[in-house]
Amino acid sequence: MSVYLHDIPLPQAQARLQQALQEVGLWRVLGTENIPLDENALGRVTAEPIWAKVSSPHYHASAMDGFAVRAISTNGAMPSTPLILQVGPEAQYVDTGDPLPGWANAVIPIENVESLDENEQITKEIRGPTSIRIRASVAPWSHVRPLGEDIVATQLVLPAGHILKPVDLGAIAASGHQEIKVARKPKVAILPTGTELVPIGSELKAGDILEYNSLVLAAQTKAMGGEPTRFPITRDDFDLICERVQEAAQDHDLILLNAGSSAGAEDFSAKVVEKLGTLLVHGVAVRPGHPVILGTIGHKSKDLTPGTSHLIPIIGVPGYPVSAALTIDIFVEPLIAKWLGRRPIELQTETATLTRKLVSPAGDDDFVRVVVGKVGVKLLAAPLSRGAGVITSLVQADGLALIPSGTQGIEAGEKIQVRLYRTKSEIEKTIFCIGSHDLTLDLIAQFLAEHDRRLVSANVGSQGGLIALRRGEAHLAGSHLLNPGTGEYNISYIRQYMPNIPVKVIALVRREQGLIVEKGNPRRIKSLRDLSRPQVQFVNRQRGAGTRVLLDYHLNLMTISQSSIVGYSQEEYTHLGVAAAVASGRADCGLGIAAAAQALDLDFIPLYQERYDLVIPKDHAESDLLAPLFGLLADPAFRKAVSKLTGYDVSVMGTIILED
Amino acid sequence: MSVYLHDIPLPQAQARLQQALQEVGLWRVLGTENIPLDENALGRVTAEPIWAKVSSPHYHASAMDGFAVRAISTNGAMPSTPLILQVGPEAQYVDTGDPLPGWANAVIPIENVESLDENEQITKEIRGPTSIRIRASVAPWSHVRPLGEDIVATQLVLPAGHILKPVDLGAIAASGHQEIKVARKPKVAILPTGTELVPIGSELKAGDILEYNSLVLAAQTKAMGGEPTRFPITRDDFDLICERVQEAAQDHDLILLNAGSSAGAEDFSAKVVEKLGTLLVHGVAVRPGHPVILGTIGHKSKDLTPGTSHLIPIIGVPGYPVSAALTIDIFVEPLIAKWLGRRPIELQTETATLTRKLVSPAGDDDFVRVVVGKVGVKLLAAPLSRGAGVITSLVQADGLALIPSGTQGIEAGEKIQVRLYRTKSEIEKTIFCIGSHDLTLDLIAQFLAEHDRRLVSANVGSQGGLIALRRGEAHLAGSHLLNPGTGEYNISYIRQYMPNIPVKVIALVRREQGLIVEKGNPRRIKSLRDLSRPQVQFVNRQRGAGTRVLLDYHLNLMTISQSSIVGYSQEEYTHLGVAAAVASGRADCGLGIAAAAQALDLDFIPLYQERYDLVIPKDHAESDLLAPLFGLLADPAFRKAVSKLTGYDVSVMGTIILED
Repeated sequence: MSVYLHDIPLPQAQARLQQALQEVGLWRVLGTENIPLDENALGRVTAEPIWAKVSSPHYHASAMDGFAVRAISTNGAMPSTPLILQVGPEAQYVDTGDPLPGWANAVIPIENVESLDENEQITKEIRGPTSIRIRASVAPWSHVRPLGEDIVATQLVLPAGHILKPVDLGAIAASGHQEIKVARKPKVAILPTGTELVPIGSELKAGDILEYNSLVLAAQTKAMGGEPTRFPITRDDFDLICERVQEAAQDHDLILLNAGSSAGAEDFSAKVVEKLGTLLVHGVAVRPGHPVILGTIGHKSKDLTPGTSHLIPIIGVPGYPVSAALTIDIFVEPLIAKWLGRRPIELQTETATLTRKLVSPAGDDDFVRVVVGKVGVKLLAAPLSRGAGVITSLVQADGLALIPSGTQGIEAGEKIQVRLYRTKSEIEKTIFCIGSHDLTLDLIAQFLAEHDRRLVSANVGSQGGLIALRRGEAHLAGSHLLNPGTGEYNISYIRQYMPNIPVKVIALVRREQGLIVEKGNPRRIKSLRDLSRPQVQFVNRQRGAGTRVLLDYHLNLMTISQSSIVGYSQEEYTHLGVAAAVASGRADCGLGIAAAAQALDLDFIPLYQERYDLVIPKDHAESDLLAPLFGLLADPAFRKAVSKLTGYDVSVMGTIILED
Repeated sequence: MSVYLHDIPLPQAQARLQQALQEVGLWRVLGTENIPLDENALGRVTAEPIWAKVSSPHYHASAMDGFAVRAISTNGAMPSTPLILQVGPEAQYVDTGDPLPGWANAVIPIENVESLDENEQITKEIRGPTSIRIRASVAPWSHVRPLGEDIVATQLVLPAGHILKPVDLGAIAASGHQEIKVARKPKVAILPTGTELVPIGSELKAGDILEYNSLVLAAQTKAMGGEPTRFPITRDDFDLICERVQEAAQDHDLILLNAGSSAGAEDFSAKVVEKLGTLLVHGVAVRPGHPVILGTIGHKSKDLTPGTSHLIPIIGVPGYPVSAALTIDIFVEPLIAKWLGRRPIELQTETATLTRKLVSPAGDDDFVRVVVGKVGVKLLAAPLSRGAGVITSLVQADGLALIPSGTQGIEAGEKIQVRLYRTKSEIEKTIFCIGSHDLTLDLIAQFLAEHDRRLVSANVGSQGGLIALRRGEAHLAGSHLLNPGTGEYNISYIRQYMPNIPVKVIALVRREQGLIVEKGNPRRIKSLRDLSRPQVQFVNRQRGAGTRVLLDYHLNLMTISQSSIVGYSQEEYTHLGVAAAVASGRADCGLGIAAAAQALDLDFIPLYQERYDLVIPKDHAESDLLAPLFGLLADPAFRKAVSKLTGYDVSVMGTIILED
């Protein structure tokens, strides 16, 4: 059987690892330990069923402050025919929680008891030979918590494999325990390898890669209930990596060897596993993350898993951060769950409508990060960047959509299964904003969070936003589309793209657009006229973007032909993308907003002021969901925060441009 | 304004506390601290937005192992018309992650490159003046991760108020940070008071109450992101409690004074708050938990919340464990959320059908613990014990149903809103078993957990179980109903209570029923005949219980009249309940199973062997959900575990008694 970077289906890969571990007795709880019953037990997993040692209450307890009585001796007491009970033999004062005297079987609450002397207040100080008066009978066991009401000695309090919650600790204590047997935490060694890696916080030069996968892997395994150890970076050296792996194998239950899992010249992981143990799998048909390695290696320590095995599993984790994180979810989570004896973590799955087409290799299980929002009755899933190197796609994701193997892709508007990272309640408080991006949206998101709303925005350009509104796929869109005929913003486009949909259009800001150029403006660019100079490399925005419409409008006014501009067809999707292209030298200039230039320490040549509006279908404009957004537009703190952005003018903020 | 145990509506109580804290500047993030960016940052809350200091990648990086080229110089390459590129000026080897040379703008993956010498393998060692052959052109920026693909310097990486997840830590590191500013953890002092309290693990005598509330409160506040301190038990002494509170106020942000919050003779909490500060609220219209105290008191330390306040909030938490835990959820969670700057924890809410009638005081918000299961298409909520002292009701709860104030109760079959403690996916794996309880069910639950199923059982007696099946409110019922006419079990009852519902009936066990008596059998009880001796106090099971039917059957055979039995009308709902009544001396004997007697170290006089069956509507019997249950009945490990129970015979297990 060849296992060298030959993708096998995911269930087969998981089964191969499970079988190998079963054979050596490692597919079960690794070990147990007794820990004290305190708040640090939270989240640990019970290693055996917990049986009650004592009952709770362990005696018949009064449930009220009052008098313990024999129920039978209260028979006949009525408002009109009160009964007198003698304190001592017939009635005894008890506080809540006090044991009932052996002869008593009910309690009369103090507020239902009268003193014989009208001036005397009934208190616990009352003793025989005094008497009390009652005006109602009580049933046996009234206002009594009988022995075992909560817990009966020997009953099952909690099963094995239970993740301890706060109230569980109380029930365990109540049943007479002061320590708990829990599964010991699996020890996970995380070994980052790669000559190009540098530690977090390093000064960076080209080619350096910040080593943060080990941090994410450690945090993931910790969150799953493991005990991670992060090893220092090992450079790409076969012998050195072998040494480190053998060292880690001494006192860990699992080794995660990060990067070098592919089949390149300096990808040593598979060879390391082959040399030190058994390579079970090299390559799994999942995306992202297919160059995964699964294997087992020997370890020398005898007391780690007594009586079981001298083997431990090793996983070669791909280097791209998204691949690495998903590999942990797919392969390590079920393993740690088994080792702790708990159920695997299971995310809630919901069916959502996909907002744009996704293509996927038919042979792979393809995991796509999505943001999720509810617009009207539709639950929508909008795909985020699919790049395996884009960790922010995991940060922003509300869920993970699976395109199962056997499927080549899914069309926009089709249903897709999404595993949610958030509760549906959170998602129902999500405002879905699509269209043109503006920095103000980040500030809106920040301010809205304080009003129990979450703003999620996707950049598809102004026209894309209006089309999404027509399809009912967003609550609102940001738009700055200039009508080249009238010089007016947005309205003609709204009528064209979303006919028959009543909308409310509100001005958000005026902002400066201009040319983003290198620091010091070495090409001496002054106006759009300079774009047609052959030595000037331009970077454009995508078709449909308001900034592109603005560019075309002014090119037309100035009778500059698009074909005369070098780089006109080179497209970026955001202002910051344009600025980054200039900062990296990929282009000399691009049209965008001042804030983007400032962000990357570039120069900016202001050319035009344009209005950026929020377009909101009437139904949503009147919803509770969006109400806090309108409040924000009048909030001085918010206006002040926006006006601090370079090139922004808030004087128009909140002006109603159109209301159907 | 009187605040002395006068229940006010919940929103008003919350508003009063919030206003008092707002006035002294305590209704906001308490403070911040910088912590290192490691796995311990997990779960902390960002105190300010995190902006990217560097881009990621911070250079144009090759996304593959291959050759960096100018895209333009590959134009025209086709399978039939290959192009030769000179290594050095036209093509340069790059590993994944390597920076592109300044002149290059695309990468050709190594597998698409041919050597000119057929025997030579292409490797990274290749240098000029060698050449390579390609048979396809590449587009600009193919197989390149451009600068800023993931993160652009200055962009918003994470907003303030964000709870850090594993992948967030990676994104923060990628954006150039090595520490994070987070909200400091609120310090919560937990003061248990009560002369009757004894620490966990104490030997118990009547009247002693195990003090475990402080453990639950500490674990709750810890899970919410606070830093709890548990103080030792203070006895009921006004001055001593005042002293302790003042001591705790020195270096804590919140004081939880547990118990003594009601209005009894030894309930000092309200007086303590009045003496040391301001009593805002005494009594809130919620159940359980209404005797809550909210107040503020002074503290002397100046550096705890600099520039803000010399006051801190104090909450008098009721003594019953369910009340205490719910008080923390209702009042402390929103406070800690505000102090950390995060959103309050929000449980998913679902609409469920109530399985039995609930009565509730109209003026109160009443929180009822429920187990939740999905039977067919119906989501069902079955109420658990409503006793404020029954902490196991919180342990077993799948959710919390609210009967809002203004409602006097809810009928069985009506809809109720439930806040779920579990995901819906977990609930959809829940097998809902109702009817007569048997110890075997606990073992089934334990074994089923390993097959990704959860068994939830509710005791309503055998007849109650059949009625629940008829109403579609359970997947199966345990039943041991003897037909006194035929001596046959269950079938005639099934036909009577669930006509027209096709069922499968499977024998589970044969078990011994007999008389549970005090250790040593001091009353010398030998048979049912002894129950009519006047000095023998009997304890019965509830109407509809199979054990009660069995009793009546044999009383009838023996012509013993029910009225001759002292305690015939005293009812318990479980075998263990009967045993507990005998153990406590409340009764001399009761009819039940041997295991219950053994559990409480009582004697047992075996009288009859009876069959206990599982009754399963056909639809459910054929469902995937129940499949693992049938597997279990044939599992030798399970049969062995059951046969170890005293008085159990597994020879009938799995026999089909009836199949419609």
